[in-house]
Amino acid sequence: MEMDLNAQEKKTGFFQRLKEFPRKLKDGVTKRVKNVIKFGKDDPRRIIHSMKVGVALTLVSLLYYVRPLYISFGVTGMWAILTVVVVFEFTVGGTLSKGLNRGFATLIAGALGVGAVHLARFFGHQGEPIVLAILVFSLGAAATFSRFFPRIKQRYDYGALIFILTFSLVAISGYRTDEILIMAYQRLSTILIGGTICILVSIFICPVWAGEDLHKMIANNINKLAIYLEGFEGEYFQPEKISKETNSCVREYKSILTSKSTEDTLANLARWEPGHGRFRLRHPWKKYLKIAGLVRQCAFHFEILNGYVLSNDKAPQEFDSKIQEPITTMSREVGEALKAIAKSIKTMSKDSACVNSHIDNSKKAIENLRIALKSSYPETEKDLLEIIPGVTMASILIEVVNCVEKISEAVEEFSGLAHFKETLDPKLSADIGQHQLLHRGSVKPVLDGDNEKGDNSSSSHVLITVHDEEQPPTATAKNVLGAEKTRVDVV
Amino acid sequence: MEMDLNAQEKKTGFFQRLKEFPRKLKDGVTKRVKNVIKFGKDDPRRIIHSMKVGVALTLVSLLYYVRPLYISFGVTGMWAILTVVVVFEFTVGGTLSKGLNRGFATLIAGALGVGAVHLARFFGHQGEPIVLAILVFSLGAAATFSRFFPRIKQRYDYGALIFILTFSLVAISGYRTDEILIMAYQRLSTILIGGTICILVSIFICPVWAGEDLHKMIANNINKLAIYLEGFEGEYFQPEKISKETNSCVREYKSILTSKSTEDTLANLARWEPGHGRFRLRHPWKKYLKIAGLVRQCAFHFEILNGYVLSNDKAPQEFDSKIQEPITTMSREVGEALKAIAKSIKTMSKDSACVNSHIDNSKKAIENLRIALKSSYPETEKDLLEIIPGVTMASILIEVVNCVEKISEAVEEFSGLAHFKETLDPKLSADIGQHQLLHRGSVKPVLDGDNEKGDNSSSSHVLITVHDEEQPPTATAKNVLGAEKTRVDVV
Repeated sequence: MEMDLNAQEKKTGFFQRLKEFPRKLKDGVTKRVKNVIKFGKDDPRRIIHSMKVGVALTLVSLLYYVRPLYISFGVTGMWAILTVVVVFEFTVGGTLSKGLNRGFATLIAGALGVGAVHLARFFGHQGEPIVLAILVFSLGAAATFSRFFPRIKQRYDYGALIFILTFSLVAISGYRTDEILIMAYQRLSTILIGGTICILVSIFICPVWAGEDLHKMIANNINKLAIYLEGFEGEYFQPEKISKETNSCVREYKSILTSKSTEDTLANLARWEPGHGRFRLRHPWKKYLKIAGLVRQCAFHFEILNGYVLSNDKAPQEFDSKIQEPITTMSREVGEALKAIAKSIKTMSKDSACVNSHIDNSKKAIENLRIALKSSYPETEKDLLEIIPGVTMASILIEVVNCVEKISEAVEEFSGLAHFKETLDPKLSADIGQHQLLHRGSVKPVLDGDNEKGDNSSSSHVLITVHDEEQPPTATAKNVLGAEKTRVDVV
Repeated sequence: MEMDLNAQEKKTGFFQRLKEFPRKLKDGVTKRVKNVIKFGKDDPRRIIHSMKVGVALTLVSLLYYVRPLYISFGVTGMWAILTVVVVFEFTVGGTLSKGLNRGFATLIAGALGVGAVHLARFFGHQGEPIVLAILVFSLGAAATFSRFFPRIKQRYDYGALIFILTFSLVAISGYRTDEILIMAYQRLSTILIGGTICILVSIFICPVWAGEDLHKMIANNINKLAIYLEGFEGEYFQPEKISKETNSCVREYKSILTSKSTEDTLANLARWEPGHGRFRLRHPWKKYLKIAGLVRQCAFHFEILNGYVLSNDKAPQEFDSKIQEPITTMSREVGEALKAIAKSIKTMSKDSACVNSHIDNSKKAIENLRIALKSSYPETEKDLLEIIPGVTMASILIEVVNCVEKISEAVEEFSGLAHFKETLDPKLSADIGQHQLLHRGSVKPVLDGDNEKGDNSSSSHVLITVHDEEQPPTATAKNVLGAEKTRVDVV
């Protein structure tokens, strides 16, 4: 009886599941499709790239479909298809690097292969395969070994691979065919056709430039640092007020910690690209890696700061309230400096006055912090232990200011090499001059601290700061130079 | 006259250079050759790998040289050569991943391609190329798009590429040949032959296992952390005594900061490998990445510490001398803990007692540091500012201890999953018991600090520590289990 019930239950369960199956399937499929659409929308260039591959494939298949072409190339048209599939990369740099590597490697290895076959024929029918095998073995091994050298690996890895492939193919199949020269010629010409189609489609239909991606990525990463510093005060002093969304936004800097390999790849590919848009042929791509290294160093500091921000073991309220004001100013000003740097990179226009004024302000805040620390001199030994987390946090934040100064210097040097345009035209400067006069009265007396670069530069910075309080010079410049979004696009 | 002299000079200069040319050429070539030999010696597996590729190429070329084989496969033997060249990777995991991807993708895409050709033939001679072009375009674009999905990119990127390639080749060339099934069969079988040769050579001739590389790399990275901590005292308190060599040795941890992509790749490839040596089939490869993440976190702390170690702006001598002893103990003990962890991973044997005892010692040192800090209570406000760098350094070092404890816990968890062998057999434990009795008298009274895990575990740790002072238990275990080098090999 029990078993009967059990069977009954199982049966109803089965029918139930069978009934629900279409609905579940539909739900599952809808969910998947939605995911795919969202993924495509996140970066529409992915969809465009897929279409471009389709276009290149269709173009190259004409070698088969159009009779006159098929008569001249025959089945070697296959090599053109193969080339398109393996050479077509997401970025122009990637496609160019693979295409050129493939072209030159095929040319050299093809010539060597033909030479090897002719050489082997001197050794008679018995000796020929042995000589060919020895040549294939030694050149294959040597080229494989060369791929381990970092310099070759970085730029010519694919070329070395194709060299082995072509040489082996020509040398080995040369043993069985007498029309080796015709074969080599046909193969080379179809590979050139395939490569050319790839490069043309890649460059002329919605090109994706590795260089531009790298450029945006660096500006975007600097912006992520700025976002962290913007949220720092709230996170440290009022953690209860922070929403979950802000929290995850603030943590965006974490991606910088491990972005080195992406940056290296992009810089490497960018060097293959011709001049385009704002980037000339010999754009200083390597300098991006220097800036990226400093940005990462700054992110390392955030990672350690984070430990103190999230810890429950904070300094006493009394101490915190004393350092809150200078810490807030420091993190805000240095964040503003980073935003200005990011914007200057994004728009490729110099704006060191604004950046320097923010950095100077943050340095002044460091002095104020010192004063605040002095005034919060611990009354007992126990107090000293209690304030350690706060002191450490402040100390690391001071290091962050140094880091940002280094970033600013590197970007300053880079802006010269990359021919950034000057933001302020004479008319605008005159305008600012007036503003400065109007607001000179509100300059606060500042303490002289780390900032000992001479009075001239210091005072001019202060003036611009004052102007900045009224209306940021960058904003004016932006209107003059044409509107640009302030928020750096996500790469 | 002057011009004559000038010409004369140029001439002699030219002959001089001509004379020196053979010597310079010889020097240049000798230098290059020496570099290449050194590069090969650094990791002889590179040379072996190059030879292996040569062997695989020679084996596969038999398809052409041996008449009966050539008669059955003909020019499609070319696909076997192509497969060997592109599939053969440095590690077994890499070769397997590419080989299997290539095999399955060819199978599926070949079948679909044949289907597509048959379908297109229904549309007559005019419609056939149009239908084929539409199919190639849409499947090519869809497969290209799928390569952007992280999951597919990580494991099946090469498969997707080969899918596009095979489908396009079969579908397009199917338009011009009637023997499409024979062609597909020949191509598939030669690819299988090529793939099988690769996999066999890769596994059975001096295999390089990605999993083993990952395993060694993690152990090695933990050792690098230990080396930094070992040198920390000298670097901070006696920087004038440190030699350049030690300095560069201590900085080895820097490679960890950016090793994430290598680790990810190795872990990804390791999952394709069959069980080998000490690693079973379902070895917890993903756990390595967790440990590696914690190790990197620790390296981030070193990077910040470094700023304080190298800075000239140190705390006053008086303050430093007070904290020197606990700081030294802390860094030494936590370094020892890391060494024990690295060794435990390297030998795949549990040794948590030793690790825990060192961590406990470092925690006790933290307590002593607290006491030292209390006693160096600043006498004036100025003193407080001066000791800030020292306090920050100490505070970050305490965080390092926490980091190492997390690493130890992660390795402890991992050691269970990876079936680490127990180091201490009963006989050995009894032996230690006696030692403990003999040395119980020398247990120093310790301050109770962070370590509040109950008296039992705490006291047993203390006992083992005492034993450790006489003769490390790991050393005994080592002799029992067979000698193993303590220094972890460089990957």
